[in-house]
Amino acid sequence: MSEFNLIQKYFTRLMRHTDLGVGDDAALVKVADGMQLVVSTDMSVADTHFFHDAVPYDIGWKSLAVNVSDMAAMGAQAKWATLAIALPEVNENWLAEYSRGFFACADVFNIDLIGGDTTRGPLNISVTIMGEVPIGKAIRRSGAQVGDDIWVSGTLGSAALGLACLQNNTLQDKIGIENDALQASIHALCRPMPRANLGLSLRSIATSCIDISDGFLADLGHILKASNCGATIDLDKIPCIDYLKNNLQNSQFQDYLLAGGDDYELCFTAPPSKRDEIKLLSKQQNILLTRIANTRSPVSRMSIGLESGSLEVMYQNKPLSILKQGFDHFA
Amino acid sequence: MSEFNLIQKYFTRLMRHTDLGVGDDAALVKVADGMQLVVSTDMSVADTHFFHDAVPYDIGWKSLAVNVSDMAAMGAQAKWATLAIALPEVNENWLAEYSRGFFACADVFNIDLIGGDTTRGPLNISVTIMGEVPIGKAIRRSGAQVGDDIWVSGTLGSAALGLACLQNNTLQDKIGIENDALQASIHALCRPMPRANLGLSLRSIATSCIDISDGFLADLGHILKASNCGATIDLDKIPCIDYLKNNLQNSQFQDYLLAGGDDYELCFTAPPSKRDEIKLLSKQQNILLTRIANTRSPVSRMSIGLESGSLEVMYQNKPLSILKQGFDHFA
Repeated sequence: MSEFNLIQKYFTRLMRHTDLGVGDDAALVKVADGMQLVVSTDMSVADTHFFHDAVPYDIGWKSLAVNVSDMAAMGAQAKWATLAIALPEVNENWLAEYSRGFFACADVFNIDLIGGDTTRGPLNISVTIMGEVPIGKAIRRSGAQVGDDIWVSGTLGSAALGLACLQNNTLQDKIGIENDALQASIHALCRPMPRANLGLSLRSIATSCIDISDGFLADLGHILKASNCGATIDLDKIPCIDYLKNNLQNSQFQDYLLAGGDDYELCFTAPPSKRDEIKLLSKQQNILLTRIANTRSPVSRMSIGLESGSLEVMYQNKPLSILKQGFDHFA
Repeated sequence: MSEFNLIQKYFTRLMRHTDLGVGDDAALVKVADGMQLVVSTDMSVADTHFFHDAVPYDIGWKSLAVNVSDMAAMGAQAKWATLAIALPEVNENWLAEYSRGFFACADVFNIDLIGGDTTRGPLNISVTIMGEVPIGKAIRRSGAQVGDDIWVSGTLGSAALGLACLQNNTLQDKIGIENDALQASIHALCRPMPRANLGLSLRSIATSCIDISDGFLADLGHILKASNCGATIDLDKIPCIDYLKNNLQNSQFQDYLLAGGDDYELCFTAPPSKRDEIKLLSKQQNILLTRIANTRSPVSRMSIGLESGSLEVMYQNKPLSILKQGFDHFA
């Protein structure tokens, strides 16, 4: 199978909002008048971001979903993506399932795959996503004000728990996790559902926003640093599944929640005057939205002075000493 | 060194035409009114596209330059790029030189690096480039008309010759290449100069255009197939350095010229009425532009019926049987 045929067979679909898609030196699209183009890129590497023998449908879904999540965090409408993929070999079964997962995600979020590159090499997937936002309306990390509420969508920590179970088959017995919680955690890891609609609705509500990919503390830390704010978080207030909630005295479980990452939930700030609006949004979109703390000035008596902002975590009225904020590929 | 510091130190520069660059969940840019956004992506893998121990400055230059070449082939003005890079380890010397080469190319072509991703994994570089073209003015592969002139910029085959010499140290002695030609060929391979200004000027001249990356026959074949045309090429008319020209009886040298790829020259078609304009352009931009053939109807008495279009090559008045049209990662 030639490179050309591979692209034709697995990666060429009808375009929805694209003037020229796959098949020329570049793609052509029209960004609507009054809109800014929003651009983000994420690279997924075998055995760094996913197990090389993971379900290829899930790899396909997630490789696009994590990029959709970045659009959501900016309040942008995702529209276009490019896919560059290095494959160690042509495995048609793998490609068929990978592309099925990728396009399932593209269909849910109404995204055109407009171009790409296929090459030979260790399995590596690089997706660039592009979307639109009305000029000046993007939600940036730097907009939080002292006194804003800090909100989190969904529940955190499940993906990290799922990863720990997959990495260590005996862990499941050791931690006594029930099968339902295990399956939900693995699903959270492998098939994240980015908060695309929530991100769009937050344009007129949130003062800052980020998606939780590296880990809750690291990502909230980015907002706090960019906004010159601090925060004190009560571990008990962070939304998570009951199984995690019931084991929070264990520091490993604290890590899943605070630093595990791969959650693809949104963490955002908004003034207290927006609480009713946010509660209504939670009902309308059927998404759990939890108010967990307020931003404060960056200096605090107990501040642990993290590089990412003055962020401290309390557990049962005592400050937690934080060893790990989130995932860093090179730290 | 953390991922954050690495990005800050090596990949963050002042923006020229970008509203929000590196450092948030996504970048924000404004595409000018009346323009289409033009998007292309190219992935470069160690030991597939470059030797893992190649000069990192050159890897940096080329990883962006090959993308600029795609913009040129569309008649687009390159403006923005994202860079996703997987690194096996943090080698600061390598990173400093890589980023110096990347930004040298970015400076020459006035491109902002607006976002990216750094991760751990086998060395892999994925660049997505974005540019602008007036709506409807992009030069596509499909616009060639029967009877158009076929033009090529610069000289072909040097990069493939350079690669062959690097792959086989004894080849240099065997083929008796002079040092000047050797150095020029290696330079062509490692430091390609995309034809950005030529591409912009061709908007109002060319009926179709492609950049020669996979190999001349494969790339011209893409134009012919997309335009439903054929062509008969005389090997002697393809522009190349004297050293290649003098060895064209050798089928290996024919391959360098016809199928070597990595040339990053432009191949374009234009009606014969544009010849004077093109000659003037050649003088103004000091770029060799060679008229090598004309398009014809796709069927020919001697047609070899290649998948990519009816393309045949003559050498000393006899048809050449073509074994290899260009590089294909999976064929």
